Amino acid sequence: MVLERLQQITSHFSGQPGHAYPLDPLSTDEIAKAVAIVKRGYPQVHFNAVTLWEPRKADMQKWLASPETMPRPHRIADVVAIGSGSKVFDGLVDLNEGKIVKWELTEGVQPLITMEDLQIVETVVRKDAKVIEQCSILGIPPEDMHKVYCDPWTIGYDERFGSGVRLQQALMYYRPHVDDSQYTYPLDFCPIYNSDKREIVHIDVPKVRRPLNKAPATNYHADATAKETGFRKDLKPINITQPEGVSFIVDGRTLRWQNWSVHVGFNYREGIVLSNITFNDKGNVRPVFWRISLAEMVVPYGNPEHPHQRKHAFDLGEYGGGYMTNSLSLGCDCKGAIHYMDADFVNRAGENQTIKNAICIHEEDAGILFKHTDFRDESTTITRARKLVISHIFTAANYEYCVYYIFLQDGTIQLEIRLTGILNTYALAPGEDAAPWGTEVYPGVNAHNHQHLFCLRVDPNIDGPENTVFQVDAARGAGEVGTPENPYGNAFYAKKTKLDTMKTGVSDYDGSTSRTWEMANTNKLNPYSKKPVSYKLVSREVPSLLPKDGSLVWKRAGFARHAVHVTKYCDDQIHPAGRHVPQTSGEPSQGIPAWIEADPDGSLDNTDVVLWHTFGLTHFPTPEDYPVMPAEPMTVLLRPRNFFTSNPCMDVPPSYSSTPSSVAAGKTGVRGVVDSLSRVAFGGKQEKGGSNDCGCN
Amino acid sequence: MVLERLQQITSHFSGQPGHAYPLDPLSTDEIAKAVAIVKRGYPQVHFNAVTLWEPRKADMQKWLASPETMPRPHRIADVVAIGSGSKVFDGLVDLNEGKIVKWELTEGVQPLITMEDLQIVETVVRKDAKVIEQCSILGIPPEDMHKVYCDPWTIGYDERFGSGVRLQQALMYYRPHVDDSQYTYPLDFCPIYNSDKREIVHIDVPKVRRPLNKAPATNYHADATAKETGFRKDLKPINITQPEGVSFIVDGRTLRWQNWSVHVGFNYREGIVLSNITFNDKGNVRPVFWRISLAEMVVPYGNPEHPHQRKHAFDLGEYGGGYMTNSLSLGCDCKGAIHYMDADFVNRAGENQTIKNAICIHEEDAGILFKHTDFRDESTTITRARKLVISHIFTAANYEYCVYYIFLQDGTIQLEIRLTGILNTYALAPGEDAAPWGTEVYPGVNAHNHQHLFCLRVDPNIDGPENTVFQVDAARGAGEVGTPENPYGNAFYAKKTKLDTMKTGVSDYDGSTSRTWEMANTNKLNPYSKKPVSYKLVSREVPSLLPKDGSLVWKRAGFARHAVHVTKYCDDQIHPAGRHVPQTSGEPSQGIPAWIEADPDGSLDNTDVVLWHTFGLTHFPTPEDYPVMPAEPMTVLLRPRNFFTSNPCMDVPPSYSSTPSSVAAGKTGVRGVVDSLSRVAFGGKQEKGGSNDCGCN
Repeated sequence: MVLERLQQITSHFSGQPGHAYPLDPLSTDEIAKAVAIVKRGYPQVHFNAVTLWEPRKADMQKWLASPETMPRPHRIADVVAIGSGSKVFDGLVDLNEGKIVKWELTEGVQPLITMEDLQIVETVVRKDAKVIEQCSILGIPPEDMHKVYCDPWTIGYDERFGSGVRLQQALMYYRPHVDDSQYTYPLDFCPIYNSDKREIVHIDVPKVRRPLNKAPATNYHADATAKETGFRKDLKPINITQPEGVSFIVDGRTLRWQNWSVHVGFNYREGIVLSNITFNDKGNVRPVFWRISLAEMVVPYGNPEHPHQRKHAFDLGEYGGGYMTNSLSLGCDCKGAIHYMDADFVNRAGENQTIKNAICIHEEDAGILFKHTDFRDESTTITRARKLVISHIFTAANYEYCVYYIFLQDGTIQLEIRLTGILNTYALAPGEDAAPWGTEVYPGVNAHNHQHLFCLRVDPNIDGPENTVFQVDAARGAGEVGTPENPYGNAFYAKKTKLDTMKTGVSDYDGSTSRTWEMANTNKLNPYSKKPVSYKLVSREVPSLLPKDGSLVWKRAGFARHAVHVTKYCDDQIHPAGRHVPQTSGEPSQGIPAWIEADPDGSLDNTDVVLWHTFGLTHFPTPEDYPVMPAEPMTVLLRPRNFFTSNPCMDVPPSYSSTPSSVAAGKTGVRGVVDSLSRVAFGGKQEKGGSNDCGCN
Repeated sequence: MVLERLQQITSHFSGQPGHAYPLDPLSTDEIAKAVAIVKRGYPQVHFNAVTLWEPRKADMQKWLASPETMPRPHRIADVVAIGSGSKVFDGLVDLNEGKIVKWELTEGVQPLITMEDLQIVETVVRKDAKVIEQCSILGIPPEDMHKVYCDPWTIGYDERFGSGVRLQQALMYYRPHVDDSQYTYPLDFCPIYNSDKREIVHIDVPKVRRPLNKAPATNYHADATAKETGFRKDLKPINITQPEGVSFIVDGRTLRWQNWSVHVGFNYREGIVLSNITFNDKGNVRPVFWRISLAEMVVPYGNPEHPHQRKHAFDLGEYGGGYMTNSLSLGCDCKGAIHYMDADFVNRAGENQTIKNAICIHEEDAGILFKHTDFRDESTTITRARKLVISHIFTAANYEYCVYYIFLQDGTIQLEIRLTGILNTYALAPGEDAAPWGTEVYPGVNAHNHQHLFCLRVDPNIDGPENTVFQVDAARGAGEVGTPENPYGNAFYAKKTKLDTMKTGVSDYDGSTSRTWEMANTNKLNPYSKKPVSYKLVSREVPSLLPKDGSLVWKRAGFARHAVHVTKYCDDQIHPAGRHVPQTSGEPSQGIPAWIEADPDGSLDNTDVVLWHTFGLTHFPTPEDYPVMPAEPMTVLLRPRNFFTSNPCMDVPPSYSSTPSSVAAGKTGVRGVVDSLSRVAFGGKQEKGGSNDCGCN
């Protein structure tokens, strides 16, 4: 036994894959092993991604059901590599077997742009003669080319260049000083960069030129504020401390907190991946979701002038929410007692790259969980809520996305996204009107209208994988006012529409009916309500895709055509705009539209389904958003409905609770969680004495 | 001078009204004085309300503009009194003059039900022979009538009884034990109570009887949980402390915090009233809103069976959000350093009634305010946000509404409402199906479908009172895909529709266009964007009124027919369903529909306008909501758009900020607000050493 234990430990530290949890991201050792195996066969490639190829669901569920008897899923690396001539290879390396099990040349696609790909372009641009010439036209002399910067986006899709060559478009800027925000000084031309040859192959120049902005710099960092206005001095500290530590347990990457259990994965593409989410319902561990992730997003810009149509970033599929993730800091990004997880990737050369503190896990007080006072006698019960937050933040060139997966005690899972960072900006000529496609947010700075459309992939597992999705609308009852069935006209009910086949399994948003979508297990009825156990998707920021039907964005971002798509589960259907997104033409559309077309009559009734939800914001910029945008939050909820037989957080200790009989007897109620630290703000007995009056009058 | 000061102080403490701030609620002394004056003239009446009659806006603005030269508005009490025979008197008492200046008998209306009115009915019901008989039929013997309870709602409107007599409907319940939640034991009949005669005048009995529920009790208080399951033991404390005190200043009832100034009023009807809200924009104190309050709400239930059509409570107009407000407790309702304000009312006899700690004012950390990282060099700026919360909680019989007015540093005002408490329930016979109009949330307990529709009254003062309201929709640009004006089909813009007359100044919700409403001052353009300075109403929980057009609720709750109504400002138009709401028939509709009908062509363009916004939730209950509902939050935002010339919170000290040059020089960035208390959760250097790594990477 001792020997076996020792071997396990040894194998763990020597990078043997046998004992990582099957859903854990690849360790640095595993990445190194995969790279070594690939390099043996294909020494000339560089690496775009080496990430966990997740176990097939059927294998994983078999193993989970009986880990002693069923085979443990192999650790397999999913490899994307690029050879010369923009050749793309998709491979799988079985780390248990120590060999490549798949290696394919994939034609006509381009994998995402890595941070290294982003970094390279700026140096090339600064040296390119034609770029230098364009800069000169705008008044930037060649000796100032070190003041020229670019955000080198993927090209998106440009019909002139197609998909065969790996391209980037360089959104151009200027910095008068290295510490000045370049977004105040956009340049009006757009070089196109060939990543394979490392050269500028074309420059898009507008017919009417827009000169370099002459406005003074407006900067977002503290040095600038210190010089210009100083800082406000009227903010006193709010301290958040957890002297007894956190209320969650971490076992590898599995978190346990307040009846929840969730595995926290992470990959270069989706960032955080939550798997095997269960809720312990009075001793009965019930599956809730198999896997939840932000699977894709698209940010279409609304200016029709060429070449702005190319501005519609798929930040996850074209750049990677994981690759762009920030290293987080104590007391800055999150406050209190924090558990961090790192993220390990491969770089172009095949070396390990680690982002420290990529994931933040922490708790927060969440206000009132429930409260009731009996008006007869003022007996009262008040209980405060707690939430668990699993978050990461990624920087997509100019913009920041703060992603918070929040678990609540009442069985709700909330996804909150906060948008901050800097607007994408374009040059504005003196006298030019930015409207209607944009706003002059600062003199000479045109911020174009845009949408942020996120695609949340939800693989429900509501008491098991066989689920059905219903569209639910608040609907008026039949019968006009005065009829026997509806004499006072007040009848209303929840109208449920089954999304029953791949072809018909789509749904748009309707705010006026408070539309929601229920993921139900119709095989299991709530014993009280006799309705199927379910989780309800509640989402209220659900704009239509504004690019028109048949437009470039509509073709490329098929997932954004509807608020909800439901598809039959398939292990390989993870990316709703396709596995490789840059330079897809949308002809035919990849991802969801292709999957539907392949099986239009496939039944979605009482089977293993995936719900894809597109939500987000339409942003018409204003000067308030500049030079850095105050965070704008948005929320999506997954709420248990008819899943439990009662409020599942009744046993959270109250702050205070009395009963009618205790009030009548003049007794103090129960003080379950005594907060002896809250104080009155000004004077008063409590402040001086430090006593606490928790308990209601 | 000294004498004058002394006289001021004396007059203050002797209840002379001269020196209260004109918008302050009436003090206990002022209430006593008003009552004494009324009693001199009308000794037989009892009091329904004695509240501040707010100064006329024109008078108040004149005085504010020149307090030294213009007359200070008088302190005037708005009195509602009831005489025998359900006679209703509306009066005004000028406290400066010490006399009644208006006293009118108002025919055919009933003022709201006070907490005392609520309390009385239960004792009458228990002694009524016909009620005792009905209880016997259900198996409750006469000696158990002390176990019979009722929630004595207003009758709403019942066409059989009209408006001339003051009536309540007693929703009946039973408690096996005094500490059992009565909502598990609804009784199926409904007595109607005459408040004037203090007797039961009728009982509505269903044709098919529903026996008393036999299910075991399910209770929400801690005693019950302690006995049944005990409390979870895995929650460790989160402490929130403010060792240096709060960041706000209180001057009387005017709060100053982070450039905001706001007067915090309170009345029996609306609860919190926020007035004269300004924002100090770099030394320029700019008016933003003249007055914001929750002005009305209605909770229609969706079961068409008689007499459930009467269940559509106007909780503010029929009961009073102020009257029903809770006395709040440190560390229970809010955590940290709290400033409370009390609420003073009159009781039926004319005596003072004070609710201690009716309003809670406190700050909270609010996560990330803004962040940006330059991907080239990882220079980063991260600043945390703070919010100021002004809150109260009111209990409407079974239900709790937690109301939070939240001020943010970025110029946003957020109204958050959390719904908790207990579902209104009705009896369910064995074998009876609660669907489709309700849900069996516990054996034998039918919780009916309902809506919570709130009406937020916003009196904008966007750089002055002359404002215009626009409906704003995200709209696709003209030109099909491939046309010269829209070659790639990606054009989109903000389509603005002026709400220009009383008749046309209504707007429904459209979630698919991300519809918002802008309150703009078209006389003042943002110098950068050249768009009118404005505040935008962003609200995403905006269901349609589900009772049909022409229905009883539709007639009585005219404000709920549209998401937005805009009206010309009028001092007396405060209550969108009318000044006295109980027993209104809706023929004709009071409040907003009447005001529109009186002036259908009145211009709303560039004048003093009021925006009324109806929002809320449609609630299809489930067992998770029982025996007490986990708080369900909803939010409305008022956001500055084109109001400022830049992000107005740039000068908030950062948590950490570095610049490209400081990173290049290997220097540490600015640590503006150092959080030295955050720790890593498990092991690690930071936890042991207590050091802090705030500052990225």
